[in-house]
Amino acid sequence: MRILVVGASGTIGRAIVAAFQSQHEVIAASRLSLDAPVDIEKPASIREMFRRTGKVDAVVSAAGQAKYAPLANLTDADFKYSLENKLVGNINLVRLGFEWVNDGGSFTLTSGVYAQTPQPGSAAYSTVNAGLEGFTRSAALEAPRGIRVNIVSPPWVAETMAAMGLDPSPGLPAATLARAYLGSVTGKQTGVVITPERG
Amino acid sequence: MRILVVGASGTIGRAIVAAFQSQHEVIAASRLSLDAPVDIEKPASIREMFRRTGKVDAVVSAAGQAKYAPLANLTDADFKYSLENKLVGNINLVRLGFEWVNDGGSFTLTSGVYAQTPQPGSAAYSTVNAGLEGFTRSAALEAPRGIRVNIVSPPWVAETMAAMGLDPSPGLPAATLARAYLGSVTGKQTGVVITPERG
Repeated sequence: MRILVVGASGTIGRAIVAAFQSQHEVIAASRLSLDAPVDIEKPASIREMFRRTGKVDAVVSAAGQAKYAPLANLTDADFKYSLENKLVGNINLVRLGFEWVNDGGSFTLTSGVYAQTPQPGSAAYSTVNAGLEGFTRSAALEAPRGIRVNIVSPPWVAETMAAMGLDPSPGLPAATLARAYLGSVTGKQTGVVITPERG
Repeated sequence: MRILVVGASGTIGRAIVAAFQSQHEVIAASRLSLDAPVDIEKPASIREMFRRTGKVDAVVSAAGQAKYAPLANLTDADFKYSLENKLVGNINLVRLGFEWVNDGGSFTLTSGVYAQTPQPGSAAYSTVNAGLEGFTRSAALEAPRGIRVNIVSPPWVAETMAAMGLDPSPGLPAATLARAYLGSVTGKQTGVVITPERG
């Protein structure tokens, strides 16, 4: 399969690329990519990415950011940024991407644990991730030509915890998490929020 | 209690006002209200509403709209409108409202069945309603002074179905639905998505 991984330079994105590239053709898109540069906050940039890459069998996105801060400190601009970047960015990746995905192909997006299990500071992330899960369930019903749409909701990732100076042992290794994306791309399910557990 | 009902002129809002007004002081806010006019899409309008009404014990919102249309027909502007109106409008009602709610008071927002159970055409609603549920869970953790934050997810409302020329018998009567808001305002729960069932 020909698989476009958006957000390929992040912790999760790199693990996804590593998991797919032994058996599939992987196109690694990210803001700083030379082959497939993309800023998902800009619809024109998404369109240009698809024009460069051409048709694919699957789009996997681990792209998009939101602002993490105490609710009392989150500004109008923080919510606007979070919604436009991670939420609308990924919605647009699907809306603009449909025509570039082959019949029976798939989209797999990324939400996160804060969608269902918030922490103080996660208000923007919780809004965006839950919204993206709602969009996924709905978009799956209307996707054309047998295209499937799923979303992986990662728990805390071990490598992210280590990078933050935390004990990584409660986290899920990124390589294990990547198998959930592989399952979405190669499986039959659609409209599903996939919640990988520590194995 | 002194209760501000936002979106008081709609089908659900009118039923909420009717349910509360025998035992509580109700302030009915809506876009066309003379006493408490508000357009939740405009933060300045929300601020002005709270300045007019003063301190309250509870804010109940059945306000906010999104665009219902096939995903292929939903435009960038439709998503932007939906997010700014129902999602960010209600988020701002909470963010800007905290200082106007008495200690131990509450916010009760409204999502809808499409958050978890989409239909073709509901993509913008599903995104907005699910996002608002995520925000609610998170805001409840950070609400100051014992203030609670819940959200009611109404099923199809009988009066709405009748107004659309559908058989209303599978729907929940608005007066029954209103009891769920009463339960949120007078109860102890917080961070909860309340899903009323037909009784």
